[in-house]
Amino acid sequence: MNKMKCTVCKREAFVKLPAHNAKFCPDHFDQFFLRQVSRLIKKFRMLRPGARVLVAVSGGKDSLTVVDVLHRLGYQVTGFHVNVGIKENNFSEESEAVTISFFEKLGLPLKIINLEKEYGRNITTFARRFPRLCAVCGLTKRHLMNDYALAGRFSCVATGHHLDDLASSLLANVLRWDLSYLAKNLPVLPAEGPFAKKIKPLALLSEEEVRIYSELRGIKPVTAVCPYSKEAKFKRYKFFLNELEKQSPGMKRAFYENYLKVAGIFEKAGTSELPLRNCKICGGPTPSEICTFCRLWNRTQSAQEEDQEINLGDGN
Amino acid sequence: MNKMKCTVCKREAFVKLPAHNAKFCPDHFDQFFLRQVSRLIKKFRMLRPGARVLVAVSGGKDSLTVVDVLHRLGYQVTGFHVNVGIKENNFSEESEAVTISFFEKLGLPLKIINLEKEYGRNITTFARRFPRLCAVCGLTKRHLMNDYALAGRFSCVATGHHLDDLASSLLANVLRWDLSYLAKNLPVLPAEGPFAKKIKPLALLSEEEVRIYSELRGIKPVTAVCPYSKEAKFKRYKFFLNELEKQSPGMKRAFYENYLKVAGIFEKAGTSELPLRNCKICGGPTPSEICTFCRLWNRTQSAQEEDQEINLGDGN
Repeated sequence: MNKMKCTVCKREAFVKLPAHNAKFCPDHFDQFFLRQVSRLIKKFRMLRPGARVLVAVSGGKDSLTVVDVLHRLGYQVTGFHVNVGIKENNFSEESEAVTISFFEKLGLPLKIINLEKEYGRNITTFARRFPRLCAVCGLTKRHLMNDYALAGRFSCVATGHHLDDLASSLLANVLRWDLSYLAKNLPVLPAEGPFAKKIKPLALLSEEEVRIYSELRGIKPVTAVCPYSKEAKFKRYKFFLNELEKQSPGMKRAFYENYLKVAGIFEKAGTSELPLRNCKICGGPTPSEICTFCRLWNRTQSAQEEDQEINLGDGN
Repeated sequence: MNKMKCTVCKREAFVKLPAHNAKFCPDHFDQFFLRQVSRLIKKFRMLRPGARVLVAVSGGKDSLTVVDVLHRLGYQVTGFHVNVGIKENNFSEESEAVTISFFEKLGLPLKIINLEKEYGRNITTFARRFPRLCAVCGLTKRHLMNDYALAGRFSCVATGHHLDDLASSLLANVLRWDLSYLAKNLPVLPAEGPFAKKIKPLALLSEEEVRIYSELRGIKPVTAVCPYSKEAKFKRYKFFLNELEKQSPGMKRAFYENYLKVAGIFEKAGTSELPLRNCKICGGPTPSEICTFCRLWNRTQSAQEEDQEINLGDGN
């Protein structure tokens, strides 16, 4: 078999990207990856040159990659990590250690919040009451991060969601025809009242491309797996989309990009949301008297009894 | 293991329908099936009591089932069958024979059009020029049927599309975000100018439910398989939806029914279609001078040269 040649420089290629009809050597893959991110940032006006951005960092390959790329593209990155206190598999300790070491190496600022230290309990204490622990965990991290981004006047909050995440959640939302989620499966959500602007700079790069980039850059993500992860449903969607992708390279990206062209029709049709007021405890935005975060974490006897009524939502 | 009991009469059940959280004996499955169809007919105002309806009949279980059910529900059914002239597997001859014998048994009128006799060539003569023979075949049958329905003043044209067909084509349309198809994946398309009203009375019944009904009723569909059938893509979608259905019984129907609730937003957003005029040869509706059907079947030397330009569309 002939050796593959880089589409750009004709030297030996190490990777083939059928969706882009291209093969790359390491240097040109790196260039390709950075260009894809910077184009998306420009196209969706995610960041002004040199902007201060708060990046959600779990310690996984996706979030470390988005830190690395934004830093290389000249943005002022601050990391934000929440130690949720999962002891199994040494998951939370290892995640925090990996994150700290990554940020030290790059010399970038990092904010860590430890739930046990700050709130006297870890996330697993909710596991029995809320079988959907991922929802509690996501809600908690989003709340803390939004607070910190607003207080620190960051231009926005960035996450490491890639094309496979967005295409599979899009498919999930389509299968339910949930118009309010279909209106918001976007690479950018603008700042809105008490919510910081949110961006997903890896939105058009596949999980596989992110994996290749992270390995090429010598990024060492956390290897421990969250024992509570219940992504089975999303995995099915990802698997299905990847099967289709094999048959028609580029379909996954086309599915998501074509959605972006028509997403406006969902915004108009989406159900009107409840008006927000200020949470009596933290002052944050909530449709009820006390926000879900405070009901979960600032425990009172009566609040505990209300647990059953808490609606955890389902967003990214 | 205990014997299953019919949800209605508590006698022995022969079938379990997790999507409906029900088990049925043969009698009550039959009742269930008829009720599902008649409810859908009422809900979408498909047919007035006793209406004259032209049913597209291929000889497969789905089309024979829709004939059987509409006849039992008191509608005046006429069958419409096109012998497309596929010799392989004795496909077209067997399909026609099965259809004739079925209609004779029920004592119902049946119109048969034989392409070779009427147009001097069969559908397979297009196979080399048009790799998507299913598209040519579908377009041809729809054109002939529409003509016959209008000329005979039938209230509408009915087809045997079931939930699996509609949910999988809906998924295909969503993956492409084709708004004009998303606007029309409905159980009823009203009469519009030169197009007869189209109805799909089995739209909310799964393929499995149709199969059970047809066996229970002793319906013997054609067993030969069309050698040109290229439904691989749709099969993948059907397989995926059936996998999801196993995990969450009822999701397939919810996917389609929830779409029906929001389909209006696509109608408004759908691209405006080309204005129609009358085909110079057959007088039928077409955006160009001569309609695709006539360009395909009323062959002239020059028309043959234009074959490459013919856009076959992709509808049901």
